[in-house]
Amino acid sequence: MAILERHDIGHVAHLRLNSPANLNALSDEMLAALQSQIDTLREDSQIRVVILSGAGKAFCAGHDLKQMQAGRAAEDGGKAYFSDLFARCASVMTGLTRLPQPVIAQVHGIATAAGCQLVASCDMAVAAQGTRFGVNGVNIGLFCSTPMVALTRNIPRKKAFEMLSTGRFLSTEEALALGLINDAVPAEALETRTQDLADTVAEKLSAAVRIGKSAFYDQMTMGLDEAYAFAGNVMVENMLWRDTDEGISAFLEKRTPDWAEA
Amino acid sequence: MAILERHDIGHVAHLRLNSPANLNALSDEMLAALQSQIDTLREDSQIRVVILSGAGKAFCAGHDLKQMQAGRAAEDGGKAYFSDLFARCASVMTGLTRLPQPVIAQVHGIATAAGCQLVASCDMAVAAQGTRFGVNGVNIGLFCSTPMVALTRNIPRKKAFEMLSTGRFLSTEEALALGLINDAVPAEALETRTQDLADTVAEKLSAAVRIGKSAFYDQMTMGLDEAYAFAGNVMVENMLWRDTDEGISAFLEKRTPDWAEA
Amino acid sequence: MAILERHDIGHVAHLRLNSPANLNALSDEMLAALQSQIDTLREDSQIRVVILSGAGKAFCAGHDLKQMQAGRAAEDGGKAYFSDLFARCASVMTGLTRLPQPVIAQVHGIATAAGCQLVASCDMAVAAQGTRFGVNGVNIGLFCSTPMVALTRNIPRKKAFEMLSTGRFLSTEEALALGLINDAVPAEALETRTQDLADTVAEKLSAAVRIGKSAFYDQMTMGLDEAYAFAGNVMVENMLWRDTDEGISAFLEKRTPDWAEA
Repeated sequence: MAILERHDIGHVAHLRLNSPANLNALSDEMLAALQSQIDTLREDSQIRVVILSGAGKAFCAGHDLKQMQAGRAAEDGGKAYFSDLFARCASVMTGLTRLPQPVIAQVHGIATAAGCQLVASCDMAVAAQGTRFGVNGVNIGLFCSTPMVALTRNIPRKKAFEMLSTGRFLSTEEALALGLINDAVPAEALETRTQDLADTVAEKLSAAVRIGKSAFYDQMTMGLDEAYAFAGNVMVENMLWRDTDEGISAFLEKRTPDWAEA
Repeated sequence: MAILERHDIGHVAHLRLNSPANLNALSDEMLAALQSQIDTLREDSQIRVVILSGAGKAFCAGHDLKQMQAGRAAEDGGKAYFSDLFARCASVMTGLTRLPQPVIAQVHGIATAAGCQLVASCDMAVAAQGTRFGVNGVNIGLFCSTPMVALTRNIPRKKAFEMLSTGRFLSTEEALALGLINDAVPAEALETRTQDLADTVAEKLSAAVRIGKSAFYDQMTMGLDEAYAFAGNVMVENMLWRDTDEGISAFLEKRTPDWAEA
Repeated sequence: MAILERHDIGHVAHLRLNSPANLNALSDEMLAALQSQIDTLREDSQIRVVILSGAGKAFCAGHDLKQMQAGRAAEDGGKAYFSDLFARCASVMTGLTRLPQPVIAQVHGIATAAGCQLVASCDMAVAAQGTRFGVNGVNIGLFCSTPMVALTRNIPRKKAFEMLSTGRFLSTEEALALGLINDAVPAEALETRTQDLADTVAEKLSAAVRIGKSAFYDQMTMGLDEAYAFAGNVMVENMLWRDTDEGISAFLEKRTPDWAEA
């Protein structure tokens, strides 16, 4: 059984972290499997949306602490290994953000440390009620500095600081109110609701979603004038596609668009 | 009847989008009228606050899709026209942000695509309960990339991504909770509440509101030290005005200030 | 009696603004006392958390307006004095952010103008129910441009603009929902709750909290790749500490860590 399972339903790829024994820890093997899937999906024009979930009791509990401790046996005390590990982890996290397709986290149980970072790094997230979110590395002497990068780009700073410095967990209700997740549903509705959200996005013109997702993050850190100049060019490109012409015409003529892409 | 009506009540200018037949679409004519008013208001020392509203059933439903489709007849398929159109639209949106006077959106019915961008580009917004907010261009194959610039500077990123990629609408309650609007009131109270908010601002020392609005956006993207150095200079300038001296003295002496400006 | 009282409980330093007659105004004397404590605390390896509170009816009502008005008597109308004043104030505010130890505002009564800026500049804040928060300088002709720097880095922009341009106060409930404070409790529970929060942080590995706090603000304004490269290096450094090794080992072995630091 693969450490990362993939099965596709129509245009939606389901990636399932499948290492329940260690709460789907982001071990070297898991990170490699995720990177490999990200690299594959990037080139896959058939896949329009990705759902990321976890097998077993928890979505993901972060790094593989046993493996990290074993890394200390190296001559440099693990320095080179840790440095490489966090670089590989960052590559996966930014890889999700830079994947052309939207990625939805389907979260249950717990999402802690780098597991919470995974949620924050996805474009959207749906959680089962009762899920707990934390960046609690501080409890064992390891401040969640890399998860912080994603977390502070999702929720207001004082709450992020509290989570990071106290290790306190957020409930799904708090995570929803703060903007860390998009929806919270009963556990039995989690798969259906996430699939519905994915299907809604998958039904759109895929090229428009892709150019839009990419522009979303690119414009975010620009000044206002630069962002508008950039986004204006994206709009022009989008307008000049045959399928967008057809989409607007169909709307004006109150009929279903006949998209070449579909 | 003008496509953009203006009537002033005291120091408050009311701009009303007046093209109800196409839900106050931001046509070439509407954008030109808005730009013209922005240019006029910028020089108007009597006007202290601007209210932007829409006639008919909706605040604004975004760009004029029929006109945009007609633009495709050009030899370049519309490329030059679209490029110019989005530049003119961005000029209006940033023009609202850079107007010396605060601008309040008075919103009802629907505010979609560039109409939602208008709301996001105003400094404050009051909405009638039941108003729906969306950036739903993705439904017809045109991702709302330019509205996104304003939207993502107003609300948390995961909710913004959801709106943009699913076309889903926000209720007024959601818009309020996310920070896209400042207040939601029953439809029959919309005009009064918006006017009250405008009057509250118009009663302040206008020069202070102007220097403050300008500094608000300027400091936002600076690093902390740069922002403080900049804002400190603004405070010094503000302190040195005769009317600020009088305002502080009046406060300390528990009397009404005698402002030269009023 | 000192204008700024300090008493330490274990690893927690309590700083109390003690000038109730002028609602703990940030006078020249108060700013100097704060700066002095910040400079002292920065070098104090025993102190792990700082709590900032106010004596009397209010947390802090901002600058000392009488003293500011007196500054106008100078030959330059106060220009040099004001310029220096805002620089000293900014140094205190950024000094709180840059202090190695987390700073918690314990807020009651009112926190207005630079008093609200103090709350926004702390890493976390707990408030008594009924506390009111405002940046209301605009009411007397002085736009709160420097408080705005801290405020706009805490809460969504449309609400910040409303507070600044109308002088309207936030209730504790609003402040909590917007992210300006972390918790709101009955007045009689304020001290206990704040102390509990401080104790929770003080029990962590102090070096981890320090490196984390510093990284928190440093990475915030970086681009995504730069932020991850930076935070990755912080994680490596953190991992290589003896006490972090011990903390992770103790967790894996389900025992209490034996930290050299404690």
